[in-house]
Amino acid sequence: MPTTGVRILGISGSIRKGSYNTALLHAAKKMVPENSELEIFDISGIPEYNQDTENNPPEKVVWLKKKIKEADAILISTPEYNYSIPGALKNAIDWASRPDNPFDGKAAAIMSASVGAMGGSRAQYHLRQVFIFLNVYAVVKPEVIVTFASEKIGKDGELKDTEVQKRISLLLNKLVEFSIKLKQ
Amino acid sequence: MPTTGVRILGISGSIRKGSYNTALLHAAKKMVPENSELEIFDISGIPEYNQDTENNPPEKVVWLKKKIKEADAILISTPEYNYSIPGALKNAIDWASRPDNPFDGKAAAIMSASVGAMGGSRAQYHLRQVFIFLNVYAVVKPEVIVTFASEKIGKDGELKDTEVQKRISLLLNKLVEFSIKLKQ
Amino acid sequence: MPTTGVRILGISGSIRKGSYNTALLHAAKKMVPENSELEIFDISGIPEYNQDTENNPPEKVVWLKKKIKEADAILISTPEYNYSIPGALKNAIDWASRPDNPFDGKAAAIMSASVGAMGGSRAQYHLRQVFIFLNVYAVVKPEVIVTFASEKIGKDGELKDTEVQKRISLLLNKLVEFSIKLKQ
Amino acid sequence: MPTTGVRILGISGSIRKGSYNTALLHAAKKMVPENSELEIFDISGIPEYNQDTENNPPEKVVWLKKKIKEADAILISTPEYNYSIPGALKNAIDWASRPDNPFDGKAAAIMSASVGAMGGSRAQYHLRQVFIFLNVYAVVKPEVIVTFASEKIGKDGELKDTEVQKRISLLLNKLVEFSIKLKQ
Repeated sequence: MPTTGVRILGISGSIRKGSYNTALLHAAKKMVPENSELEIFDISGIPEYNQDTENNPPEKVVWLKKKIKEADAILISTPEYNYSIPGALKNAIDWASRPDNPFDGKAAAIMSASVGAMGGSRAQYHLRQVFIFLNVYAVVKPEVIVTFASEKIGKDGELKDTEVQKRISLLLNKLVEFSIKLKQ
Repeated sequence: MPTTGVRILGISGSIRKGSYNTALLHAAKKMVPENSELEIFDISGIPEYNQDTENNPPEKVVWLKKKIKEADAILISTPEYNYSIPGALKNAIDWASRPDNPFDGKAAAIMSASVGAMGGSRAQYHLRQVFIFLNVYAVVKPEVIVTFASEKIGKDGELKDTEVQKRISLLLNKLVEFSIKLKQ
Repeated sequence: MPTTGVRILGISGSIRKGSYNTALLHAAKKMVPENSELEIFDISGIPEYNQDTENNPPEKVVWLKKKIKEADAILISTPEYNYSIPGALKNAIDWASRPDNPFDGKAAAIMSASVGAMGGSRAQYHLRQVFIFLNVYAVVKPEVIVTFASEKIGKDGELKDTEVQKRISLLLNKLVEFSIKLKQ
Repeated sequence: MPTTGVRILGISGSIRKGSYNTALLHAAKKMVPENSELEIFDISGIPEYNQDTENNPPEKVVWLKKKIKEADAILISTPEYNYSIPGALKNAIDWASRPDNPFDGKAAAIMSASVGAMGGSRAQYHLRQVFIFLNVYAVVKPEVIVTFASEKIGKDGELKDTEVQKRISLLLNKLVEFSIKLKQ
């Protein structure tokens, strides 16, 4: 069906160097369906959002908003901090969504990874609620929830688990297909 | 019942100058029960949390953690951004909770204000889920949800609405009483 | 765009006679886009779900599942009980989703009404999480949240509020359009 | 500390015969701290709540409300259906909470079990939100989330996993202690 490709913007909710979630995005990059592409945006270095200065955002936020606007779809891979979305990721979204909202009407997909047994699922459900405000349409299934991430992702950031690979590939295909449908 | 006072640490989820939520904390300061006290901590200027450097946190985070440790109870007043907790507030909590958790076992209470009809309630429910991970015991009722805040709080930051004043006073009394019970 | 119509199944989360949410469904029935249709299913009289007998469901559940299967899209209008989905509605969904899931892949939309200031919004967010398991794609916006319902809906069940009428009409159009896109 | 005992009312969210969650309650019954007691209430056979008849509830609901009123604390053990609270459990709570609320101000604790990897956690967070409306104070930790329940609970309903036993015992002690504090 896709005659033209889909541009996906990938955002990791963790800024640490050896992040499992950033690793998932790099794994996804290799599995993007033909004609489509995935660009990863690094959200590090964004100061806290302040409504007083939202009309004069930091340069990195300007850049992030531009990238979101140019993208057809968003792919977020995030850890769970304190049973919710990492503050840094939420802050990037807060900046990006104001005063205009470049996310409006786009397709999105979510992945999460954690070393624990819940795999970041609680962050995903909070993020899905954020998407309601943003008017973002998230792919429902498959849910990519990577539990015990340290057993599935090597120290070199390589995703070794074939089951997870398959789910990511399926999610990407769904995201591309869904994004195209939404724009028709 | 309280023979000794309760030290409450107040945190605003907004760092903008004319914040309605900061105004609620200042209003609360005047209503603190006898023998107790409320100190307001300004979370502005905290960079994004990075697990790689969590053992070497910014000075402001060191200070925040010390204040949380010294406090008996926490009072958070927060706006709702994108149907959830502001990233800046969540980020301050992420930093403060790692690697050790000074919130552990403390009492807390939540207020929220917004110019809209929902009054920040969605941020409160997400915050309550964060409290589960932190092992924080939140006062259940009254819920202080200030809708249409611009009609109830003046440009000078003065809380004019007597109904809201009463609810805040009730919440503070509950928080002090609950904090004392938890420590027995 | 729609060459063929969309069959919408409407379900009210309240079974009381003068239900505001049932009234919203009846109002919606009059606004369904051309070629499409809305049938309202009454969930009253369904006993509690029991996994032991899920292969031998009550007749009403058999009927409900058949109606869901035949429908292209689902429209739920629900009150909020105890800050969540009414048990009776959730129970109907529990029965209908087992052992096979007729909701799978369908489009849906949500409305809620309550006499209070929050309009049932908390039930909507819980219902959206249920939809994730069911693999249901819910329309994101507009959110139809009818606050102070007794002022907007007459004792005869007539929806008098033109603003709410417009939002319902918009939601229905979105639902029809979204349903068609999903099936392409 | 407890000079008088605490009466705990246990409610299972599943009514199937071999329910893992009912098994957890029976396991808990054997571990109740000295002087305290746990009575298990079976919610099966309650028809759907209807506001029109809430002043004339079914006999079983009258009985349930009486038991809640007499109890000092509530212990709910529940499966997760469709990423939320089972409709039957929610329906029992809806009935019990109206028109007066016998849960008001009581302590509670939650357990959940499922055969899957998430152990019913999503139902727990929804239930905690319900508790806010009910003004119920839930024990925060430990969270008793029993994953892969079929490996930990025998066909005879015996809880074999010593780790889970310890957590339940800890939860019960917390619940008794918390209930006593709340009533002081």
